[in-house]
Amino acid sequence: MNRQNHSPDIPDVKPSPARLPPGKVWLVGAGPGDPDLLTLKAARLIAAADAIVYDHLIGEGIITLARPDARLIYAGKQSSRHTLPQEQINALLLTLTRQNLAVLRLKGGDPFIFGRGGEELEALAAAGVPFEVVPGITAASGCAAYAGFPLTHRDHAQMLTLVTAHRKRGGLDLDWAALAHARQTLVFYMGVGAAEEISRQLIAHRLPAVTPVAVVRQGTLATQTAIFSTLAEFPARLRAEKVEPPALIVVGSVVDLHERLSARQHDSVQAMRHL
Amino acid sequence: MNRQNHSPDIPDVKPSPARLPPGKVWLVGAGPGDPDLLTLKAARLIAAADAIVYDHLIGEGIITLARPDARLIYAGKQSSRHTLPQEQINALLLTLTRQNLAVLRLKGGDPFIFGRGGEELEALAAAGVPFEVVPGITAASGCAAYAGFPLTHRDHAQMLTLVTAHRKRGGLDLDWAALAHARQTLVFYMGVGAAEEISRQLIAHRLPAVTPVAVVRQGTLATQTAIFSTLAEFPARLRAEKVEPPALIVVGSVVDLHERLSARQHDSVQAMRHL
Repeated sequence: MNRQNHSPDIPDVKPSPARLPPGKVWLVGAGPGDPDLLTLKAARLIAAADAIVYDHLIGEGIITLARPDARLIYAGKQSSRHTLPQEQINALLLTLTRQNLAVLRLKGGDPFIFGRGGEELEALAAAGVPFEVVPGITAASGCAAYAGFPLTHRDHAQMLTLVTAHRKRGGLDLDWAALAHARQTLVFYMGVGAAEEISRQLIAHRLPAVTPVAVVRQGTLATQTAIFSTLAEFPARLRAEKVEPPALIVVGSVVDLHERLSARQHDSVQAMRHL
Repeated sequence: MNRQNHSPDIPDVKPSPARLPPGKVWLVGAGPGDPDLLTLKAARLIAAADAIVYDHLIGEGIITLARPDARLIYAGKQSSRHTLPQEQINALLLTLTRQNLAVLRLKGGDPFIFGRGGEELEALAAAGVPFEVVPGITAASGCAAYAGFPLTHRDHAQMLTLVTAHRKRGGLDLDWAALAHARQTLVFYMGVGAAEEISRQLIAHRLPAVTPVAVVRQGTLATQTAIFSTLAEFPARLRAEKVEPPALIVVGSVVDLHERLSARQHDSVQAMRHL
């Protein structure tokens, strides 16, 4: 980790003037991907921590902000293969705090939205380890802003529902009748593997087959791609374009607003990169 | 605005080296309140903008980060009295860009979650003005992290629903049957005035009267207060404690986790302030 090698895209973070109190864990949301979407607090903690335990969705552009001598531990976690089981991550955090380190547990998005942050904190609380939580921008917010559609809008949706689409015993354990409602936006996290089921169930529960759907990959990064389709057609599009997880699936009429709202943003991305 | 007068709590933001491209609008989320929860991108834009049009939930700690010579325009917007009607805000943004200014439209939380960001962008798009959206941390994330409970948890909730509780024609126009479901967390934005109705309707639609409820005011600020109650009892608590809007109402069993998870955080707030 050489600070001199920063690309111009990487935000300039002031190194912390003081060391962090040792023996404590900060559970920190790293946001959706773009290092520029880190909070000031998260950026400062990343630059100051003795040890950073990070998940696989944390990009290199963020890990680069760590102290050159920080201990960086990859804790994995992908939809289908967990590099470290949750119990081992919990034990690792305890071991590091017992070594009197200031420990950053860095998670993609927001640690309290589908991040299992609560479960890790319960283990720390049971062991009497002090901790603190720093929220992050959740993927839904980041992807919507960068793909060019709002998540709510008076003419379209007064409710926003975020759902984890992880499968249990072969199917999704979701209340489809409650999900299939007009005037709301649905966002499925980790839903690529369940695309067929999402499409079939929502249509069976009377959400119109023409409801707009966006599938966003690599959200907020320069490599972001978005597929715009409909509830009936998006699973076939994902197959045809061989879309791999992780991706965010957004269902609702707000998605169509990207036609008016996204083009102008893209014009200016280059300008921003030089800021 | 005198930069020398910053309190030690206010994050140290590097002033932008370059002026922003003029004649453009950045629609930026300021997050839930704590200036430390601004994104790096938002902080840099605030420090660089020629003009900032901001809502009433934007705290002084954030506005202070503006350039000393920036034009600061308060656009109001409170639950019951809109200082500037939406059409006037739209017109103002156009006027400022025609003066060749780099214009920041600063909103509390995330501009695409109940922020009417989409509506303002539609007006800009129609007028051919370039714009860009910067997401922010929404109030639900900030309040949960600082009050000490997760919004989702495998044992409690696999869905998170954010609802705007603004009233229309005397009542809330919500699908209560869809909202009153187990294994989800509900968050009502701007719901204080509708507390009775939320309580009555959710119980009538079979959500247990003992479901935990948190009402968070001044979320993420040093002045944050949280009332922990139940679905049956929280409206009376709000009356008894004369709680005024705005506040966030969180309904779901995750709320009870604050008993185990919040105390330890508070121990360390002082340490963080010196970071």
